[in-house]
Parts: sequence; structure tokens; C-alpha cells
Amino acid sequence: MSDSKSLNDYRVIGTRPVRGDGEDKVRGKAQFAEDFRLGNMLYGKILRSNHAHARIVSIDTSRAISRPGVRAVVTGEDFPVIPHKMVSMGEAGLADQRDISDNCMAKDKVLYDGHALAAVAADSAHDAEEALKLIDVAYELLPPVMNVRAAMADGATVVHESFLPGSFVIPTEKHLPNATRIQIEDGSVEKGFAQADLVVERVITSETAHQGYIERHATTVEWGSNGEVTVWTSTQGPFEIRDNIADVLQIPVGKIKVVPLEVGGAFGGKDRTYLDPVAALLSRKSGRPVQMSMRRDEVLRATGPTSGTQIKAKIGARSDGSITAAELELAYEAGAYAGSPVFLAMVAATTRYNIPNVRMNGFDVIVNKPKTRPYRAPGGPPVVFAVEQILDEIARTLGIDPIDLRIKNLTRTGDRLVLGFPCPSIDTEGLLRTVKAHDHYSSPLKGPNTGRGFAYAMWFNLGGISSARIAVNADGSVQLVTASPDMSGTRMTLAMQAAEALGIPVEKITSRCADSDSIGFSAPTIGSRTTYATGIVVCNAAQGVLKQMAARAAVLWEVAQEDIIYSGGIFRNRMRDEQQMTFEALSGRLYETGGPITVHETFSPKGFVPAATAHLVDVAVDPETGKVNILRYTAFQDVGKAVHPDYVEGQVQGAAAQGIGMALNEEYFYDESGHLRNASLLDYRMPTALDLPMIDAVICESPNPAHPFGVRGCGEASIIPPAAALANAIHDAVGVRLSSMPMAPHKVCQSIREKTGALGSHIARRVD
Amino acid sequence: MSDSKSLNDYRVIGTRPVRGDGEDKVRGKAQFAEDFRLGNMLYGKILRSNHAHARIVSIDTSRAISRPGVRAVVTGEDFPVIPHKMVSMGEAGLADQRDISDNCMAKDKVLYDGHALAAVAADSAHDAEEALKLIDVAYELLPPVMNVRAAMADGATVVHESFLPGSFVIPTEKHLPNATRIQIEDGSVEKGFAQADLVVERVITSETAHQGYIERHATTVEWGSNGEVTVWTSTQGPFEIRDNIADVLQIPVGKIKVVPLEVGGAFGGKDRTYLDPVAALLSRKSGRPVQMSMRRDEVLRATGPTSGTQIKAKIGARSDGSITAAELELAYEAGAYAGSPVFLAMVAATTRYNIPNVRMNGFDVIVNKPKTRPYRAPGGPPVVFAVEQILDEIARTLGIDPIDLRIKNLTRTGDRLVLGFPCPSIDTEGLLRTVKAHDHYSSPLKGPNTGRGFAYAMWFNLGGISSARIAVNADGSVQLVTASPDMSGTRMTLAMQAAEALGIPVEKITSRCADSDSIGFSAPTIGSRTTYATGIVVCNAAQGVLKQMAARAAVLWEVAQEDIIYSGGIFRNRMRDEQQMTFEALSGRLYETGGPITVHETFSPKGFVPAATAHLVDVAVDPETGKVNILRYTAFQDVGKAVHPDYVEGQVQGAAAQGIGMALNEEYFYDESGHLRNASLLDYRMPTALDLPMIDAVICESPNPAHPFGVRGCGEASIIPPAAALANAIHDAVGVRLSSMPMAPHKVCQSIREKTGALGSHIARRVD
Repeated sequence: MSDSKSLNDYRVIGTRPVRGDGEDKVRGKAQFAEDFRLGNMLYGKILRSNHAHARIVSIDTSRAISRPGVRAVVTGEDFPVIPHKMVSMGEAGLADQRDISDNCMAKDKVLYDGHALAAVAADSAHDAEEALKLIDVAYELLPPVMNVRAAMADGATVVHESFLPGSFVIPTEKHLPNATRIQIEDGSVEKGFAQADLVVERVITSETAHQGYIERHATTVEWGSNGEVTVWTSTQGPFEIRDNIADVLQIPVGKIKVVPLEVGGAFGGKDRTYLDPVAALLSRKSGRPVQMSMRRDEVLRATGPTSGTQIKAKIGARSDGSITAAELELAYEAGAYAGSPVFLAMVAATTRYNIPNVRMNGFDVIVNKPKTRPYRAPGGPPVVFAVEQILDEIARTLGIDPIDLRIKNLTRTGDRLVLGFPCPSIDTEGLLRTVKAHDHYSSPLKGPNTGRGFAYAMWFNLGGISSARIAVNADGSVQLVTASPDMSGTRMTLAMQAAEALGIPVEKITSRCADSDSIGFSAPTIGSRTTYATGIVVCNAAQGVLKQMAARAAVLWEVAQEDIIYSGGIFRNRMRDEQQMTFEALSGRLYETGGPITVHETFSPKGFVPAATAHLVDVAVDPETGKVNILRYTAFQDVGKAVHPDYVEGQVQGAAAQGIGMALNEEYFYDESGHLRNASLLDYRMPTALDLPMIDAVICESPNPAHPFGVRGCGEASIIPPAAALANAIHDAVGVRLSSMPMAPHKVCQSIREKTGALGSHIARRVD
Repeated sequence: MSDSKSLNDYRVIGTRPVRGDGEDKVRGKAQFAEDFRLGNMLYGKILRSNHAHARIVSIDTSRAISRPGVRAVVTGEDFPVIPHKMVSMGEAGLADQRDISDNCMAKDKVLYDGHALAAVAADSAHDAEEALKLIDVAYELLPPVMNVRAAMADGATVVHESFLPGSFVIPTEKHLPNATRIQIEDGSVEKGFAQADLVVERVITSETAHQGYIERHATTVEWGSNGEVTVWTSTQGPFEIRDNIADVLQIPVGKIKVVPLEVGGAFGGKDRTYLDPVAALLSRKSGRPVQMSMRRDEVLRATGPTSGTQIKAKIGARSDGSITAAELELAYEAGAYAGSPVFLAMVAATTRYNIPNVRMNGFDVIVNKPKTRPYRAPGGPPVVFAVEQILDEIARTLGIDPIDLRIKNLTRTGDRLVLGFPCPSIDTEGLLRTVKAHDHYSSPLKGPNTGRGFAYAMWFNLGGISSARIAVNADGSVQLVTASPDMSGTRMTLAMQAAEALGIPVEKITSRCADSDSIGFSAPTIGSRTTYATGIVVCNAAQGVLKQMAARAAVLWEVAQEDIIYSGGIFRNRMRDEQQMTFEALSGRLYETGGPITVHETFSPKGFVPAATAHLVDVAVDPETGKVNILRYTAFQDVGKAVHPDYVEGQVQGAAAQGIGMALNEEYFYDESGHLRNASLLDYRMPTALDLPMIDAVICESPNPAHPFGVRGCGEASIIPPAAALANAIHDAVGVRLSSMPMAPHKVCQSIREKTGALGSHIARRVD
């Protein structure tokens, strides 16, 4: 039916068409969740706890409900009482439905600064805000537990009397008072360390950081008289949000329709519900649609940042550089409810190296902070920060080139991974040889206190279930519809795959994302999966379209369908050479041969797709202020076939920029009573354009055999190496190793002081 | 796989669940097209011609565009110039794209009172209305052509110098100056009339009448920077409107998404575009979304009422009552552009009788009135008004019971229809015997000037392409989505079919109508087709779901799929009796066996489905005022299996009510210069609740073998007989035959005067 072609013989894949959503976004015309309007709509606002840990003695809403303009008030008592129960989020794992409900609205206890206590719907946002001040809450304060060390200490305050452990793929055990333990063991680390000539051990910590999406959370919910609930919101996963809402409100899934609007940034933080069930209950009480949106401080205090951690890592190597053993203990904050990314961190920790003896203990630790949510390659940066610094130290100590050390120990296609299955196809050595051959690696450093760092990481992109529908119109135009919200240009990258598969120009295709009623079930846009996994489903649907069109041509030419061949955008009758029709011409004959064609496909590619990334960074450290200036940054990533190279570069650059922010500046500052002290973008210090260098993205393309065009996905991996690469560069520049993320100026200064016993100005020269 | 059951062995079909959309509509919460809001939205208004026929010399919009608050102005010059070209509307026939464009906005000429000339978008509807007054138009007036007699007269003014004939299934010829002719001939009418003992000939006329839907036309259109056009509107056919807009604006179909909102009445009048392309151009010019809605006078002046007609009918019968020949000449107004329902009227004229010799000439006649559109059984009432009066006259003259006369000549299953194909299965005789046996037929009439009338009609319901999607969720709830806008409770009647086919309670199903991007192509909700034709597709999709669920059960029980049986809502392993799972329990296992199930089906049942209806009416005529009071009304209709008997009765009652309005009161009054003089619901006299009796609906159920549950469709047929039945009842009451619809009081008075040569008061007794 279709052409056979070599990997690089593409018409559309690999080109750079302009994406359709750009101009509306630049002009401010795109409809984001806060722009959405319904007639007769109310505005909802949430009263939040100022205490990190307290028992709720009473909530009196009587003064608020009496205020003019107020139409409804809800508290935890308006929510159905539900038991602890793990509910499936499909590819997005499992979650305890009670935790999801309690995180939307506190019931007996508040568990973090910013925890929702009550909500008001009123004629205006101002009326609602004012009414919040009239709600009287009495608390019984409890001691807050603010990090993994305090939470796991003997005699620590217990945050939950009972809870279900977070969702992990392998067996877990409770580790009281506030943690769950999971263990991975392969070989014997005792034997491995006995074989080592050099053993390096480090303990690192990292702080809570937020995804920092520009668009704040917002939703509009209408609860119809017939019990049908419609939700217009910003989300990575309309189906996941729908299932969340059904679980929290205990109503049938089929009654809920979630309409995903444009997403103004998410990075993992918009796949779980916060406002929607609250707005739903306010709508049911008031009989009117209710819109709710968070202020920036609410986003920072009460959505899902990534974990603060403590990681102990110990690695042994022979003097030839071969690694014999690795032992890690990873403690990841889950926030106020179980479920950190510690298991993903354990997978990311050492799988890129072929280490015969590995033991890892992971702890999922409950603390009095907001419930963590995924943040781009969740859990990866801190553990790689620990391990890649140790590898840098081993290379320096043994006098081996740091890239050669990695190549020596590299996991290659088919090598057995620590989880027991063989590594799927990927050219990891080709990636590292590209780094080594790159001009950046050999160019000289200039100036005082400059240094170069390198780090390497591997990540496993998700597959999972997706749906796609392709419709062919009588004028030859085509609609492609999926359920994958577009966070990075995927409407275009999916359209490009459809165009390639259909043999038509991409301009003929309109690509949109549907609501949860309007397409088959799909996993969220997470795990770098959309262009890869949804892409496969799009290609399948395109094949279905071509098959049906061939059948129509067969009807018109009165031959068997097998005699129709399609190539170069032209249907041909194999029996009569002169009978030919373009895709467009045949489209014009659809009405007379059975109507326009629509093909719907749902499919779930199995397993994971490896992605590899290596970063090189040059820095100049100011020893007086501790400020780290990035002089040059090159990010190498194997993305499989790059569908739209501009967007791939954008993903690599964006991920690296976030990794740099996490590495150098971003962190939550909690005071001793558990109040978040920097809940604004002025004080929560994300890198600005002035803080960042040009990030050169070098795209490597070892094809993924699981995808028809070799696509791997590219969204996450490059957030992992920056912290490790920068730590290694700082060491190269000023001879100190940082053990804490972010490597903020005061920590850099402190490390230099500890090393030299002197003020920074005394070492105003290159330290080696 | 599924149960085998007899026709009446249903769990859900035939019950009367409460429809989901009712409460929101009663409470005013349902979102109709005028309720829809977008941020930054403008309001558009249209300047309309006050002349029925004129050449546009110039339009000066400069003063309007300068008015504060005005954001864009468009005229015919802003529309693409397009050639005459017949474009397919799928099952909805063909249309000339140039006519569709010209009807949205006049280019060189205005062709009817109310024809759009220019449009303004402004910050408020008031600003837009005021700006219309600042548009200066210069006309060259032309003589208007206001009915079929004037239009077809020698020397008549030519409305269109060139035009394509309306869409007919069989060959047509132009019949200058303003008409197209189609002819149906079967046997020899000359021979047939020669065999007749009695020949009756009548000429009738009927006037333009409007569907009278309560919801006025409204639309909101956003033209995105990327050229994607989204339309939120009230329509019977989102795909047809989409294709209309693409043709008028000459943009790719794939760029347009039409979101159908709740429909507040349509009856055939909301399947073609009026405001949408105008709003689209205003949106493109202003860069903002534009909402447009019509005032009531605009709806009456410038949308699509049904045709005024003139029909000559001549029927011959032997003295035993057998009809030997029928000859008809039907002239139907098309309005300002070609395409009246004359062909449908020809099909409806005599097919219910098995007449050996038939000749019909149909004329599609262009006049200076708004372009007609379908109105519930389009074209049927006037021609049946003519034919059934003649049959009443034949029965009276020959002294044969009027029902026996019909039974003698009845078309039965398999009889050859005038179009050449055999009549599909239907128990027409059973219907007429039900009427004859009914208490109404034999009960005595009481009081002076009372009479009883009977009429019988047959209509052919459409099949056509539909799409449906069924999704099964993990909690056992189910979504059913179709592209068929719900004008009569079809969300429920389709859900009931899905519930029956799936073996689950209907309460488990949420049923919705999708936008044009969110489901496969479908023909509009027209031709009584949705519960029948879309219903078949729903049943097919349900079978697909059960097949996939059986496969999941087979996976769980590790047996072959063939060993899974499903009955009574329970999946069973045929090999091990104890292995059983309910539909709901198996739904809960979907995540672990491949994810939730979604099945999408598109299918087009071929051919037409006969529907038969017979009405009995008792009247009292006030000879002084001519007012016809309805004393008792019984409508008998064969609907096949009645899915939801309440809604079927509602359809029969609603159709009869509209037929009564058309029969007794409703008509457009044009003055000599072509101005519509009654463009308001005060002056355009639809029946109110006080005008109508209780209409008893008697449902007959001869199953349709083309549908799995025997459904025929029921929406249209009962609008046809009322005028004929009332005419026969008036004759029975006061001895006069009315030759003009509506049979308004002044015409009844006039007829009585002509008959008696006296004032009405002189005949204040029962005339026979």
C-alpha cells in the first residue's frame, strides 16, 4: 500500500513548518482557562490554612454566606466521605482517592501551609475574596515535619495515623513513622565493593522546587440539573482529571466531560485535580457555573512542586575505571500525602551504567509540605547530581578522561537493566563520542575561576494508551484529532506524522485536541510520550484511512481493492496504468462512494523508550559573591528521529534551562513553623533571560525501532544533567564540591571558605 | 454473543425514562446559541433590504465604520467571488454554492424583502444597530415576482439571468422564465381516465408558512490567526453548516469546526447557513470573536419558510372505488433561489395508493421571497390537501366509506411505487383498520355545523450516514456520543438503544452530541432519521463494545474469545460455569487488560423507510365568523417500534399541531411591492394552546425490518394530514370545499357565502 523508504527519506518529518497556535498566543487571542466565559458565571475563591500542621476544631461560615453577592460556601463537610482506596490513573499510575479528596479540601487536619479549608462562590472575585475574611476557623496546632531527616527521625511527629503507600511498580513496605521503603537489589554490593580499588561516597540534599509554569491553575465547572458535570480547564490529561473528579465527588465517570483549553506551561504539574471538585460543589450548590483561579502564591503554596531529597551514594571502581558496585539510599519528600518520584529516581540513578552489583533503598517520605507532583523527568536531577559528581571524582582520581570513564561502563542496547529487562535499542556510545568530538569539549577555558563540567543521564520515556481520529473531507482537507493536550507543539508534530503517513502536504491537515467525550481514552501528555506514543496511533489511523480510500478507488474503477496501489500521493489501478487519482481528487469522490472517511484508533505501545543526554557546561565562579556565571552550554540528546527539529531543540533548551534554575537558584524557603516565605515569583527565583546563556542543542538521531519513523520523545531528559554538570564545572573552577541543590551563591561561598579557610578574594585565580 | 429476543421482549425500549436535558431547559440553564459567551466578543448586526427586487447601485459604509464602537463592516464585496456550482450536502442533497453565498449577503441584486446587504460588528448590539442606520444604499428598483402564477406567466420579470436548477434525484429541464420542470410518468393516464366512471379535478393554492421555532438564529464565530474558524451555533447539521461555510468562504473544510449548541426548535429550518459566514468575515476583519443573532422579524423575513404552491389534481375511479388514474401539476415556490421540495411533494402525492396510471409535472419556481427550506415532511401538506379532498369527494359521490375507499386502493408491502422500487415492509391496512375500529370514528357528532374529516398520508423517512461512539469507563458508566443534534429527545432514544444492545440500565449511559471535529461525518437531524438511522449505528457500536469486552474477559479467564457468552448483563465462561462477571465488574478490569474501551462506528443504511399516518378530526364551524373550532382530534401513526412512547406521542402531537396551524391560520402576507406585512409573532398567527384541542396520538407498531428493534422514525408524517382532514371535516360540517390553505375564517365565510348566496347566519344549522 504505502512506500517503503529509508529512515531519512521523508517529505515532512524533519522539516520545520510554522505551528498553528503561535500567532494567536502571541497576539493574546488564545483561549486559556482564565479567559473562558459562560453566561451567569460565578467566581470562586479558596480560604487556605496559614498553619503547616493543625487539627481543625471548627469552621464557621455563617458570616460569609450572609454577605451580599455570596451564592455558595463549601467546606470539607460538603465532600463525600470516602475510604482510602488506590484508584488507577491508567498509564499515570495509582493514587489514593482519599488523598486526592483531602488535598482538594482539608477534612479533619490541615497538612501544609496553603491547604484548602473552605471555598466561596460569589458574583465577583472581589466579593468572594472579601467573604473569605468572614470565615472563622479554630485550630489545634501540631508540630510541623518539614524534611526527610525530621520525618524519619525517631520520635518524629506522625503526620497520618493511617495511609496507603505511594504508587510503585514493585513491592513496598511501611517504614514508620512517616515513610515507605522500596528496595532494588542486583548482585552483591559487598562483593562489588571488595573488588573495588577506589570507593567514593557522598551525601547530597536538594530542596523543594516548583515547575514554575506561567499560567496559574484555573477551571470553570458547570453542574447541570441532570447531574452532568462539564469542566473547562488547563490540564495535561483530560481523562485523568475526569477520573480524579469522579473519585473525589463519587459520581459516575460518564457524567463528567473535561474540555482541555490551551496550556500555559505544566511540566508535570497539571495532571491532578485541585480546583475542579471544589468548583463543581460550588456550582451544584449555587445552580450556576463557577470559575476558580489561583493567585501565584496559591500556586506555589498549594499545587505540586518536586521533592526535597536526601541521597546517600557510594560507588566503587577498579583502577581501570570499571565500576564494580553502587549502593544508594534515596529519601524523597512526598509532601503531605504518599507518593514521591523516588522509584523513578531509583530507575534513573545508575541504569545508564552496566554495574554488576547494585543495591538501592528508596524512601517515600511524608512531610508537612504540599503534595509533590511530577516535574519533568521526575526525581532525576538530585540522584544524578549525586552519582555524576562521584563519577567525576573517580575519573579525576584515577586520571581517566571523564567521557572515556562513562563509555567504559556504558549501558548499551540489549544490556540487562537493573529492573531485569534488556535495554531497548539506543546508540549511547555514539552520543558520548559525539560529545567528545565536539568543539566545546576541546576548546580552551579562558579567565580566572573558570571550569568545565560534564554529566550524562539516561531516562525512560513512557508509551501508554493514546487515541487518534483522522477525517478526510471532500475537498481533500484532513482533520487530525487526539486527546493529547499540546504543551510543546505536538499538534504540529502529530500532524506532520499524519502528513508523512498519508502522503499529503502538512498544510492540508488541521490538528486539534479533543475533550474527554470526543475521542477514545488516552493517557495524559506526560513522560515525553506524545510525539512518540500518540504518533504511533496517528500513523495507524493514517494506514486505516489509506486502506478505506483504496477501497473507494476500487469501487470507482471496478477492480479489487488489492489492485489499488498508493505512492507519491497518487492512487493507481495496477491493472490499468492510465487510471490514477491524487489523494485530493479521490477525496472529491467520497460523497458518491459512501461518505467522508473517519478512522478512529486506540493503541498502547508497550514498554519504555530509552533517551540519553549529555551536557557540557563552562562556568566562571565569582569567589567573592559565590555567583556562578555560565559561559557556554551544550546539551546533546538522542531523540530518535527529530520530527520538527526546531521544537526538539526548544525542548532540549527548555529542559536545560529548568535544570539550571533548579541547580543554581530555585528553592522553597520554609520557616521553622512551616510557613512558605517566598511564595511569589519575585522571591522564588527562577532564571530570567539574563541569567541564562545560549544553550546549544546538539540533536543525535539513533532511531527508535518501536516507532514507524524512529521517534523517541524528547521532552524530559535534558532537565537531569545540568545540576551535575554545573557541580562538576564549579569543582573544576574553584576546587570545591557542592553537596546541596540549589548551588546558591551563599553555599558556593561557604564551600570555598571551608576549603581555603580564607575569604574568597584570596583565591582569585584558577584553582585546580 | 447477545440475546435473541422477540420484538416485544425489551428491557429498555418501550419504557419512558426522564430525559436529561429537560430540567436545565425548564430552569433556563441550558446553553442556547445566544447564551454563549467568549471573552472579547463583538456583536454583529445585519442591514437588510426593504425592497423585494432591486439592483444594488452602491453601498457606502464609510459613515458606519467611523462610528465609535464599530470594529468591522462587511458587504457582498468582502465575500469571495464563486461560480455557480452544485455542491454535495451528503444525504441532504445538492445546492448551488453561489446561491448559498448570495443568500447570506446580496452581491449585485437584492431578491427579497429582508435580503442581507451589509453587516456591522461593534462593541455592543446597540452600537451595531445604530451603525446600520449610517449605511447608505442606492437601489434601482425592479418589479417583484410574488407567486408561482406570476412567475410562470408569459412575459414575467426574470429574477435570475442564469441559475442552476434545484437539487432533484431525477432529470430536470429548465422551464423559462423562472422555473424548472420535473416529470414522473407511470402507465398511461389517458387510458386510466378512459376507464374511470368518475373523474374529480381540483385546483388548490397554499401560502408561505414558517416553521415558527421559538429560538431565533444565532451564532458565534472566531476566526483564529492560523485560519482556523470555530463556530458555536444552533443547527440541525453541524457537518452541513461546516461544508456550507467552507463553500461560501472558499476555505478548506478541515479548518472549520462547528459546535452545535442546544436547539430551540428547527423543524427543517436550521440546516443551512445564514449568519455564520457573515460573522466569520466580521471576525477576520476585527480579529475578535463575533456573535450575531436575528430579531424575530429577521427570522420571518430572511430565513427559510416553506413554499407557497399551486396544485392541479385530477383523479379518476371506477364506480367500485378503484382508482384508475391520477394526474397532477405541482408548482412550488423555491423562493429567491432554485430548490423547492416539489420532488418530495410528488413522491408524497399518491404513493400511498396503488394507482396504475400516474403523470405528474412538478415545477420549481423562483419568486422574490426568501429561499424556502424544508419544513417537517417538506412539501407534503399542500399536495395531500388536494388529493385527500378529491378522495373524500369520490367516496361521498360513490357512497363508499372513506376508509374502505382507501383500503381498496392501498399501497402495501412489496407494491411497486411510482418511483419504480417496491414498497418496503409496513402494515398500512392494519393502520387504517385501527382507525376504523377506533371509538372516534363511530362516535356521534353533536351540535350544529359540526363535521368529521379523515385523511391518510404516507411519508418516506430518510436513512443516510451517521456516526456514533461508545466509551466504557472503569466504573461501568458509559458515554454515547453522536453527531446528531437533539431536537426531540434523541439523546435519550439513542441511549435507550445503546442500553438495550449493551444489556445495561439506561441510567448508566450519558448521551451527548459532538462537534464536527469530534466524531465521524453524519448527515443532519432531518427526515425523521435520527432514532432510526443513527440508532442502527449505535447498535453496531454496542456490538463492537461487547465483542471487545468479551475479548477482555477471555484474557482474564485465559480462554478463547469464542468461549465467552454474554446474556442478561453477565459475561460467562462457557467452559467453567462458575466464571461470571457483570458488565460493571468487567469494566473495573479494563485498566489492567488494555485500557478503557472506545468504539467508533460510521454507517449509512440505504433506502427509505415508509411511515403511514391517518388523522380523524371533528370540527364545529361558526358560519358567522368562519372560525373553525376543533372538537376532537385523533392522530394514528405507524412508527415501527416506539422507543420512548412519550416522545413518539409528543412528535405526533407536535406535527399535528403544526399541520393545524398551517391548515387554519399561518401565512405570510406580502403587499404588492413585496414587503412582508406580518413579520412578528403577533401578526404571524401560529396556534396557541387555546387554539388547539387535546390531540390523541394512537401509536401503531408494525416493525421496520431494517432496524434491529424495528424503529421507523416518527418526526414528520403527522404534519401532512391535518389540512386535508380539516378540509374534509369543514365540508362535512357546512358543505363547502376550501381550495386554499390556510383555511382562514375569511375564506371559510367566503365559501359559505358563495355556496348559499347568503350571510352565514342564515345557515346556522348542520349542513350536509
